[in-house]
Amino acid sequence: MESAIRVNLPESAYEIAIAPGNLERLGPMMAQLKLGKQVLLVSNAAILRRYGESAIASLEAAGFTVATHLFPPGERYKTLASIQKLYDTALEHRLERSSTMVALGGGVVGDMTGFAAATWLRGVNFVQVPTSLLAMIDASIGGKTGVNHPRGKNLIGAFYQPKLVVIDPNVLQTLPTREFRAGMAEVIKYGIIWDADLFSKLEASPRLDQLRYLDPGLLQTIITRSCQAKADVVGQDEKEAGLRAILNYGHTIGHAVESLTGYRLVNHGEAVAIGMVAAGQLAVEMGLWSAECQARQLGSIQKANLPTQIPSFLDLDAIADTLSTDKKVQAGQVRFILPKDIGEVIISDRVSRDTLKQVLAQMQA
Amino acid sequence: MESAIRVNLPESAYEIAIAPGNLERLGPMMAQLKLGKQVLLVSNAAILRRYGESAIASLEAAGFTVATHLFPPGERYKTLASIQKLYDTALEHRLERSSTMVALGGGVVGDMTGFAAATWLRGVNFVQVPTSLLAMIDASIGGKTGVNHPRGKNLIGAFYQPKLVVIDPNVLQTLPTREFRAGMAEVIKYGIIWDADLFSKLEASPRLDQLRYLDPGLLQTIITRSCQAKADVVGQDEKEAGLRAILNYGHTIGHAVESLTGYRLVNHGEAVAIGMVAAGQLAVEMGLWSAECQARQLGSIQKANLPTQIPSFLDLDAIADTLSTDKKVQAGQVRFILPKDIGEVIISDRVSRDTLKQVLAQMQA
Ligand SMILES: NC(=O)c1ccc[n+]([C@@H]2O[C@H](COP(=O)([O-])OP(=O)(O)OC[C@H]3O[C@@H](n4cnc5c(N)ncnc54)[C@H](O)[C@@H]3O)[C@@H](O)[C@H]2O)c1
Ligand SMILES: NC(=O)c1ccc[n+]([C@@H]2O[C@H](COP(=O)([O-])OP(=O)(O)OC[C@H]3O[C@@H](n4cnc5c(N)ncnc54)[C@H](O)[C@@H]3O)[C@@H](O)[C@H]2O)c1
Ligand SMILES: [Zn+2]
Ligand SMILES: [Zn+2]
Repeated sequence: MESAIRVNLPESAYEIAIAPGNLERLGPMMAQLKLGKQVLLVSNAAILRRYGESAIASLEAAGFTVATHLFPPGERYKTLASIQKLYDTALEHRLERSSTMVALGGGVVGDMTGFAAATWLRGVNFVQVPTSLLAMIDASIGGKTGVNHPRGKNLIGAFYQPKLVVIDPNVLQTLPTREFRAGMAEVIKYGIIWDADLFSKLEASPRLDQLRYLDPGLLQTIITRSCQAKADVVGQDEKEAGLRAILNYGHTIGHAVESLTGYRLVNHGEAVAIGMVAAGQLAVEMGLWSAECQARQLGSIQKANLPTQIPSFLDLDAIADTLSTDKKVQAGQVRFILPKDIGEVIISDRVSRDTLKQVLAQMQA
Repeated sequence: MESAIRVNLPESAYEIAIAPGNLERLGPMMAQLKLGKQVLLVSNAAILRRYGESAIASLEAAGFTVATHLFPPGERYKTLASIQKLYDTALEHRLERSSTMVALGGGVVGDMTGFAAATWLRGVNFVQVPTSLLAMIDASIGGKTGVNHPRGKNLIGAFYQPKLVVIDPNVLQTLPTREFRAGMAEVIKYGIIWDADLFSKLEASPRLDQLRYLDPGLLQTIITRSCQAKADVVGQDEKEAGLRAILNYGHTIGHAVESLTGYRLVNHGEAVAIGMVAAGQLAVEMGLWSAECQARQLGSIQKANLPTQIPSFLDLDAIADTLSTDKKVQAGQVRFILPKDIGEVIISDRVSRDTLKQVLAQMQA
């Protein structure tokens, strides 16, 4: 059980290697690239305790010198201040341009390590070893790196591609269930926006939040097809000029819900689930997609134990207002990604505030 | 009197427009590019007071909305903390990805604005309006942007290309003499590493530090050819993989002198002048270039009123030690750029510490 996906970009191409046990193959895989001897392994304490040893052993056996840097865990440390501490470690260990920063962790570790790699010495090598489902199928692919501004998520960052992405689905066994579900929201997203066949596989599976224990074959397939979907989209639009916008399906309203609940009560994947339901409902109202498709989407989201309603305490006007400050706004006009069919979405800036308010009201718990 | 240089890079090409009076043409020139309406003009108070009005008037007349952000002047504010304040301004004015940050100032303003443009929303548009000679012919070309780390210059940064560089040589009238001379050191550098004809023009001119008052034609030529030299080199090696290293001629020892004198007693251009003399002398000792060429180089440096000796209080061992922590070090080996002929240099990692110490000792005042 082993898959490899090639991400083709004009100036760089790299591989996403997916297979159980890959963590022990990290060293040999990196040794095949032209990298300097020095590695800075970046993680957090909990993940390093679990998976650091095999990663480091494998790197050292392949001839690398390994130093480590730990971020405190959690989104609230995804800041420039954390990056500055990583810079200090990089300086202390005298990283050179040929050195490599390896991100071992979820999307927070990956985004921050990538940004540091992009900006230390104006760019050192970067390798991703994502350990959460979300990081595997989303955050680690596409080259978006960055940190949060006190007043907005991911406002500071750079496009910077890794040299390699190494995925070991085995590590998902220890991922908290809520985090696994959050990643599953993005998997469902790929089904709706790009890969109808992936969506059918999800529909056919009885318990979406248990499959990592019960069905490693399906898990491998889901990860591979999701990575492929993202790689396809990103490969056609590296710098987010057009097509890549479809990856924001469910994210427009999702981001608003996430930010208004302080990124804690509702996590990213849960917010995306709510956002997909909302986008689907908008599309139904606008006659773009059928009530039947919307029911199928709803079904898969529910099967993953993800929420489908807007928390009762949220102010709907606040959601609508937040949308217009989203960084994807173009010339002041909010753009929505709306579903047309399973596997196909369109981009629309024709959603009226009235329709929006009506749909949000229907969806409030 | 008007020149335009095209910088050709694989993913982006842009123009350097050089002509007296260009400041008043900034708006119309930018209007020809596909940019959003919103401009954030970044500068410092002294420069904005002198040149802000015509830049802003020209931008507004061309239909742009202009907000401003001021950095405190000086290299010691070239920090991430300054960038964070610029981010705050960008947020306050709700910059979008299509918005443009315009750097009006010397290399400090240019490097910082470029880094902020590279990293705000993962990249907004960027236009350079360099006002110092150094910024015109060096810092504004090639896409290096960044800030200093408390323990090292330019350690934090990104490669990010401007959409346009607008140079108005008239503004050099108000540049402090010492700053003008510093830029002249880089002009001489281009003569030695790339453009023998430019070097001859410098040799033929009686007072290199006065020509901005006396000979606007020669000033225009010098700026144009220097920009062309840098654009040539950068166009062949955007990410500093090989050729671009020759731009570091005079900079290896120069950086050490600069850093050991706290970036104040000896400024960058002065340090580069000292570094070029040292590199030339190393090349003479190693039989690479003639004593006669070295004398010609020395003559032009002296004519620009730039220093040619190492300050007496500097510890020569400290210089040699500092070299090995330079970020251009590869696999622990210091690489020197050494002259072979006027207009031609080579890259060498064969300079022995003994030869180095001997040359440094000869050069100490
Ligand atoms: N760059 C991109 O394109 C992109 C795309 C989507 C999301 N993101 C970013 O990713 C971040 C979210 O990523 P995330 O969901 O992975 O969150 P996360 O990195 O915070 O990880 C979630 C939690 O799970 C823990 N964890 C991770 N792997 C584990 C494992 N195998 N076993 C046990 N615990 C494990 C983490 O330590 C953390 O506590 C956000 O900051 C978001 O902005 C980036
Ligand atoms: N990005 C690159 O490739 C690159 C290359 C070389 C240098 N640099 C960077 O550039 C910086 C040095 O640039 P610099 O020499 O322009 O220094 P600077 O930006 O500090 O400018 C020098 C001084 O001159 C003032 N000044 C600028 N233009 C003026 C004018 N027309 N009239 C009156 N005063 C004026 C400035 O306000 C400042 O006080 C350094 O930080 C260096 O690291 C970058
Ligand atoms: Zn997402
Ligand atoms: Zn220089």
